[in-house]
Amino acid sequence: MRFSLRPKVIAHAHCDLPCGVYDPAQARIEAESVKAVQQKYQDNDDPEFRTRAILIKEQRSELVKHHLWVLWTDYFKPEHLEKHPQIHDLFWKATKAAGAGGAKGSMDPAKGQELLDLIDQIAEIFWETKKA
Amino acid sequence: MRFSLRPKVIAHAHCDLPCGVYDPAQARIEAESVKAVQQKYQDNDDPEFRTRAILIKEQRSELVKHHLWVLWTDYFKPEHLEKHPQIHDLFWKATKAAGAGGAKGSMDPAKGQELLDLIDQIAEIFWETKKA
Amino acid sequence: MRFSLRPKVIAHAHCDLPCGVYDPAQARIEAESVKAVQQKYQDNDDPEFRTRAILIKEQRSELVKHHLWVLWTDYFKPEHLEKHPQIHDLFWKATKAAGAGGAKGSMDPAKGQELLDLIDQIAEIFWETKKA
Amino acid sequence: MRFSLRPKVIAHAHCDLPCGVYDPAQARIEAESVKAVQQKYQDNDDPEFRTRAILIKEQRSELVKHHLWVLWTDYFKPEHLEKHPQIHDLFWKATKAAGAGGAKGSMDPAKGQELLDLIDQIAEIFWETKKA
Amino acid sequence: MRFSLRPKVIAHAHCDLPCGVYDPAQARIEAESVKAVQQKYQDNDDPEFRTRAILIKEQRSELVKHHLWVLWTDYFKPEHLEKHPQIHDLFWKATKAAGAGGAKGSMDPAKGQELLDLIDQIAEIFWETKKA
Amino acid sequence: MRFSLRPKVIAHAHCDLPCGVYDPAQARIEAESVKAVQQKYQDNDDPEFRTRAILIKEQRSELVKHHLWVLWTDYFKPEHLEKHPQIHDLFWKATKAAGAGGAKGSMDPAKGQELLDLIDQIAEIFWETKKA
Ligand code: NI
Ligand code: NI
Ligand code: NI
Ligand code: NI
Ligand code: NI
Ligand code: NI
Repeated sequence: MRFSLRPKVIAHAHCDLPCGVYDPAQARIEAESVKAVQQKYQDNDDPEFRTRAILIKEQRSELVKHHLWVLWTDYFKPEHLEKHPQIHDLFWKATKAAGAGGAKGSMDPAKGQELLDLIDQIAEIFWETKKA
Repeated sequence: MRFSLRPKVIAHAHCDLPCGVYDPAQARIEAESVKAVQQKYQDNDDPEFRTRAILIKEQRSELVKHHLWVLWTDYFKPEHLEKHPQIHDLFWKATKAAGAGGAKGSMDPAKGQELLDLIDQIAEIFWETKKA
Repeated sequence: MRFSLRPKVIAHAHCDLPCGVYDPAQARIEAESVKAVQQKYQDNDDPEFRTRAILIKEQRSELVKHHLWVLWTDYFKPEHLEKHPQIHDLFWKATKAAGAGGAKGSMDPAKGQELLDLIDQIAEIFWETKKA
Repeated sequence: MRFSLRPKVIAHAHCDLPCGVYDPAQARIEAESVKAVQQKYQDNDDPEFRTRAILIKEQRSELVKHHLWVLWTDYFKPEHLEKHPQIHDLFWKATKAAGAGGAKGSMDPAKGQELLDLIDQIAEIFWETKKA
Repeated sequence: MRFSLRPKVIAHAHCDLPCGVYDPAQARIEAESVKAVQQKYQDNDDPEFRTRAILIKEQRSELVKHHLWVLWTDYFKPEHLEKHPQIHDLFWKATKAAGAGGAKGSMDPAKGQELLDLIDQIAEIFWETKKA
Repeated sequence: MRFSLRPKVIAHAHCDLPCGVYDPAQARIEAESVKAVQQKYQDNDDPEFRTRAILIKEQRSELVKHHLWVLWTDYFKPEHLEKHPQIHDLFWKATKAAGAGGAKGSMDPAKGQELLDLIDQIAEIFWETKKA
């Protein structure tokens, strides 16, 4: 049972009050969806289903981009950037990987995986800054 | 480091293809934000800040409701309901707890906590159905 | 002329102040649109038109779900549930009928009609509670 | 009971396929909400409630404008305009009455009523064109 | 040529406070996108690309309509209408040209150009009223 | 002065097909609105007006952030970054200047002006890349 296994994990989120709650899981969850939709598209020839898959993936990819942009601008501070100078480039690549040249523009699950891998790199840095 | 501590946890999400990805964390993250905003409101007398807090909490509470509704309608199946007959009532109470009579209509962090507790009850059932 | 024929009918709606204005017509209007789009899709082979029909029906179905969820959580009270214990299940079925397994996932007008019939059952209960 | 009293009334709505379903009730329902919120604001001195009322009325007024614009552009045709040359001006006044100089910019229920009256004038013309 | 005629002009926009900032460029930018998408659709046979083009054009066309409606209702005043009595009809035609019978319902760039031409006529009147 | 320097420029916009149409004017227009709202807030003591001003500025600031994020991720390419290595930092500062620590979190028009100045720096680079 998930919550009992990690009783101290607090979910994190965003708004721009700011409430102080952030969590890369928001982007990752949508990216999981992107990859799952790509896979289901490959497994299903029905044209109506495929059209729905394309339009739904478009929305979920956009949500990935949004959650990543928010994290980049609102959570990360100059002191984080000093310690992790790759942040700018990593977010740029990850949001591009969610866009037309990446997961948004392709029905290949490999593109969804590339996006997930970049989000995991971001999450790793995020959780390091939380420990500090 | 978060992801290394729970290497088998897959983030879950929703769309209505369906992609098959669901996770109560989406609702919980927004509810954490709701409670944090309520707390910040209590700690800050500035009228501009307080107006912003009210409008932002309104949005995050609405997101909580949306994520819960999606989970209720789209994830749960008749066989889950048979085993957990409290599902309907629990979601009804939780979405009400996010609304005007609960966290949306109050700046008291206790209302945010009540909402979080109900979401945790939902999450417990959710992860039980995932084990099955 | 419509308004002169039913001079005492007050239109109803929703927000979560709450304003106290609710009306199942909001869900029904969108469901009418869902079924009409399904019919037009059947009557038209043009691929551009069909793609537009699929994406527009996706949006209208989502609106149906939203209006129903709002009604379920925000309008209905414990005393209504006591008198109409089928409310939870009826809304669950109706929102499912608007989703991937129902009108959202199919271009068959029969699926749109099933959704309309469930909404009419909800409307009947709604207007009964209003008389009380 | 509403639906039994007018069993042949078909609810109408909009999308831009077009599905062919339109109904001034969509605008009217939101305008009813606008007026109800204005009234509740007058009856309640609580500053948190009042802030919520202002932001919710802002949203409902915007929805009124949107539903009216859609009806004006998408439903009405040149032949309607020929017979009802006041259409342009009536929609212009009604959408202005929903905006900053009208119901959006005031907490006075009289402004909500003015908006409702203009929508009723539009509805009268709409249902006349339906009979033709 | 538009921009050379008003070298000192500051870009303008809208909200409904009102902030007093309006600019037909908002509608024109989206209409440029509509036409560009139509052209790219004609130049690309890939079915996934074409589905994405249709759904994206749907969104951009809707934005054109929204920006035009806002300009019509919120910026223009009775005194403008007196001097430019064609305003109502011009906006009606332009928003129709962005809809199902125009650029939204067709992948032909000629339909995008017709929309752009109507927006340019609106912009001409707009900037004349600004000079006054 | 911006517009006089590029008299033949056609307005540009964004979607993620991509259509290839981009224009920093979209962000600037919303930022102009942000500053105008801040000024009107300073000039008006009415509490209802002030609440509306705060919530409207919240929306326009969010739009500024969105338009800037899109430009950063979707328009700019590695070759632009090579020639203008300040791009990452400039967009980070500009989106922060539109957020809680900047124009979103303050009713001071000076904060709106700081945002406008950063957008103008971005626009300058943008138009240089267009000339190349
Ligand atoms: Ni937050
Ligand atoms: Ni999904
Ligand atoms: Ni309401
Ligand atoms: Ni329609
Ligand atoms: Ni404005
Ligand atoms: Ni574009």
